[in-house]
Amino acid sequence: MLKDWNRPQQPNPEELGKRLTEARKRLAAQQTAIKKKNLPVLVLMEGWGASGKGSVLGKIIRNIDPRFFKVATMDMPTEEERRKPFLYRFFVRIPEAGKFMFLDGGWLDEVTRSVLQNNDEKADYRRKIESVKRFERQLRDNGYLVVKLFFQISRREQKKRLGLLEEDKNTKWRVAEFDYWQNKHYEKCMNVYEQYLCDTNQASVPWYLIDAKYKKWAELQVMEILVESIDTALKNSESASPLLQNAFPLKSIPKLSEYNLKKTLTEEEYRKELSQCQKKLRNIHNILYRKKIPVIIAYEGWDAAGKGGNIKRITEALDPRGFEVHPIASPEPHEKARHYLWRFWNRLPKTGHIAVFDRTWYGRVMVERLEGFCKENDWQRAYNEINEFEKELDDWGAVIIKFWVQIDKETQLERFTQRQNTPEKQWKITDEDWRNREKWDQYEEAVNEMLKKTSTSFAPWHILESNDKRYARIKALKIVINEIEKKL
Amino acid sequence: MLKDWNRPQQPNPEELGKRLTEARKRLAAQQTAIKKKNLPVLVLMEGWGASGKGSVLGKIIRNIDPRFFKVATMDMPTEEERRKPFLYRFFVRIPEAGKFMFLDGGWLDEVTRSVLQNNDEKADYRRKIESVKRFERQLRDNGYLVVKLFFQISRREQKKRLGLLEEDKNTKWRVAEFDYWQNKHYEKCMNVYEQYLCDTNQASVPWYLIDAKYKKWAELQVMEILVESIDTALKNSESASPLLQNAFPLKSIPKLSEYNLKKTLTEEEYRKELSQCQKKLRNIHNILYRKKIPVIIAYEGWDAAGKGGNIKRITEALDPRGFEVHPIASPEPHEKARHYLWRFWNRLPKTGHIAVFDRTWYGRVMVERLEGFCKENDWQRAYNEINEFEKELDDWGAVIIKFWVQIDKETQLERFTQRQNTPEKQWKITDEDWRNREKWDQYEEAVNEMLKKTSTSFAPWHILESNDKRYARIKALKIVINEIEKKL
Repeated sequence: MLKDWNRPQQPNPEELGKRLTEARKRLAAQQTAIKKKNLPVLVLMEGWGASGKGSVLGKIIRNIDPRFFKVATMDMPTEEERRKPFLYRFFVRIPEAGKFMFLDGGWLDEVTRSVLQNNDEKADYRRKIESVKRFERQLRDNGYLVVKLFFQISRREQKKRLGLLEEDKNTKWRVAEFDYWQNKHYEKCMNVYEQYLCDTNQASVPWYLIDAKYKKWAELQVMEILVESIDTALKNSESASPLLQNAFPLKSIPKLSEYNLKKTLTEEEYRKELSQCQKKLRNIHNILYRKKIPVIIAYEGWDAAGKGGNIKRITEALDPRGFEVHPIASPEPHEKARHYLWRFWNRLPKTGHIAVFDRTWYGRVMVERLEGFCKENDWQRAYNEINEFEKELDDWGAVIIKFWVQIDKETQLERFTQRQNTPEKQWKITDEDWRNREKWDQYEEAVNEMLKKTSTSFAPWHILESNDKRYARIKALKIVINEIEKKL
Repeated sequence: MLKDWNRPQQPNPEELGKRLTEARKRLAAQQTAIKKKNLPVLVLMEGWGASGKGSVLGKIIRNIDPRFFKVATMDMPTEEERRKPFLYRFFVRIPEAGKFMFLDGGWLDEVTRSVLQNNDEKADYRRKIESVKRFERQLRDNGYLVVKLFFQISRREQKKRLGLLEEDKNTKWRVAEFDYWQNKHYEKCMNVYEQYLCDTNQASVPWYLIDAKYKKWAELQVMEILVESIDTALKNSESASPLLQNAFPLKSIPKLSEYNLKKTLTEEEYRKELSQCQKKLRNIHNILYRKKIPVIIAYEGWDAAGKGGNIKRITEALDPRGFEVHPIASPEPHEKARHYLWRFWNRLPKTGHIAVFDRTWYGRVMVERLEGFCKENDWQRAYNEINEFEKELDDWGAVIIKFWVQIDKETQLERFTQRQNTPEKQWKITDEDWRNREKWDQYEEAVNEMLKKTSTSFAPWHILESNDKRYARIKALKIVINEIEKKL
């Protein structure tokens, strides 16, 4: 792409000025439509150091109402960000519906730098390319416009610009060590960037190369690409995305109805096992803290199945400085305005920490599906999107444990009634719980489909038979211990 | 306090067990009330290194539903956090209404460490003590229960424990360099902590010392203090707080009606001044970026006064990588569940960056006051709380610029009508705008009171006469340039 690139013909100044005015007008007009159709626009400004990304960006945003865009400079990740999956700092910065986000530097640098500086990381590079492609595709499928721009300048031009920036004390800080390295190893960088651009050049999220030698010309190219892309995205705002085949190894799992719910533990067995398991887990927590392994424990299950008490028996054994419990309710406005996985990315633990989710991203294929909070195409696509999300966590080195807490319909009724009749427990039971109960059969069908489609080898589901809460608690503890030990 | 402390008498084991059971029961019962009355509880676990804060914390939280508490370990601030006011990382972690937050290490360490390690920072220490006292008082006044615990152990005991932790490879990482330093300089630390505890021991947010030599005994002390404090806070949940006298130097400022709104600029004057000012601001932005000075620009004003266009003329001159515009709408649920300044603390810029707020924290004394979204005691208290907030920003070294964009009633009507009649502008005008207009006189009175009570020497208000938008824009640019230049 970069190497055999047919540079577009630069127009004469008069023509350039005319086209720029035209593009500006169109962008101004598009803003109302973007707001109305809730289109989120993510623009990646990639390219060589000193290629003028920043100054072109400064020009572009003058045409946009400052309340509707944000700009983030993606320097090297912070200490904290290094303890999250590599896409974390990008995912958390995706724009809200109806707004622009400009990233000065996207993920190109993050993916290519280790290839450039230590030649041997081929496998890591391949894995990251897959992550990037999935990430960009998911954004598009979830209604995002992603515009990827690469600013191209020659080695000589780059050298000249670095010299000029260096001279002025007010711009000197803009020049990074890496910019010089890049200029010194220009050919090598060129090859690696070329490869990256080819590897991530998807039809639905394509690359655009920008001839960045002359600023005004660069500005025009960016403006025209942006305006064109927005036009297309606005036209497609109602379109459905293809449902992809599952690409991950699945583990077969029985239907809910096939589990034996008669399993019990006596109080004595329970006390003994509880104390043994919690002791063991306490030790393990220390080790994974030291080895910096992240753990994600996801709870789903019927209302009143005993999730809360189950979680409590896990966390009792943990050092409070090393875990967090995230109760997941319906999304708040700023969460609903983004990719549905955004709020979970935002709550990922640091390496060495444990995050427990009390209800999860599987809401997409249960409540959101059944209550019509998203379109059919959305939840149909979600099985794959969720597998991809969990694959990301797996690549990062996380232990992923997913529990479905299972009870039968009669047991639920008993517990609802008991809650209703116990003053301190009444807050735990709402009209919504009763309404959900009426839809038991539909939910059961949805859950079975979910279990079947998302029980992957790297993130299998575990069913906790919880008619006897004691049995379920011990089973959960043992699974947690076992799954973590596999990674120690 | 620490030195002449009357240590409480440790009960015999049987008595201890009984009291512990009793306290646990009470804490369990309190949780429903905490949820119902929306009480946020912030617990600070302070004290010597290796005094067992973490392990007692682990015991305490076993009695709390994991969905209703969070724990944060306050290590040294990150690079990012160092570029915010020192209270930032604590303020952003305050709990939501109805929930607990336990901080393993509060702000004691942050305030005392520089005194301990470089003896000469007296002025800085005094300033931070004032900040801490204001912060804690504001939390309390805004309905928070803040429980401050200091874990006390002897020098010998600390030395013994550090040795034990060191021996085990799974706990070795828990021992910080500073813990040894502390043990070596125990007397000096004791003096500094003693001073800090005295300085921050306010009646409404008092300190509790914990004899931490024996774990179970420490646990009981913490449990009993916690349960007592919660009881009191629940009883006081409806109480009003005293209105404090203003403690800051005020600048006198005319009433809105006294401004001359006939000021105008010709198109030619405007073009010329705009280009000159923007050029100047562009240069200044580079300098403050380099010098790492943070800038906060706050816009308030009548609907249709021209805030948006005014902001745009400022941001056009700025490097997009160094500013952010924050449009402020009504708070989302997770924002409403916290101190009303929380969402603004969350949006503070890094040093060297500019944050523009399109509507601000002054909503408290305007819309929230007039629409009854908060109680009278709340907005009455807010003038002082806001001055304190801005003092915090001033102490941090920020440039604070507050604009009131002023138009008269007739001009507003013209602009509303014009918006109504222009299809691309219709989204800018809502029924709410018309409703607010009906309350013009009430708002004017509230604004005059606000201007009078919050125009401090470190954060004065500037009125932008905006019947002629061009005049207002140039005036704003000049004030921004002037205010920043004062700090360069």
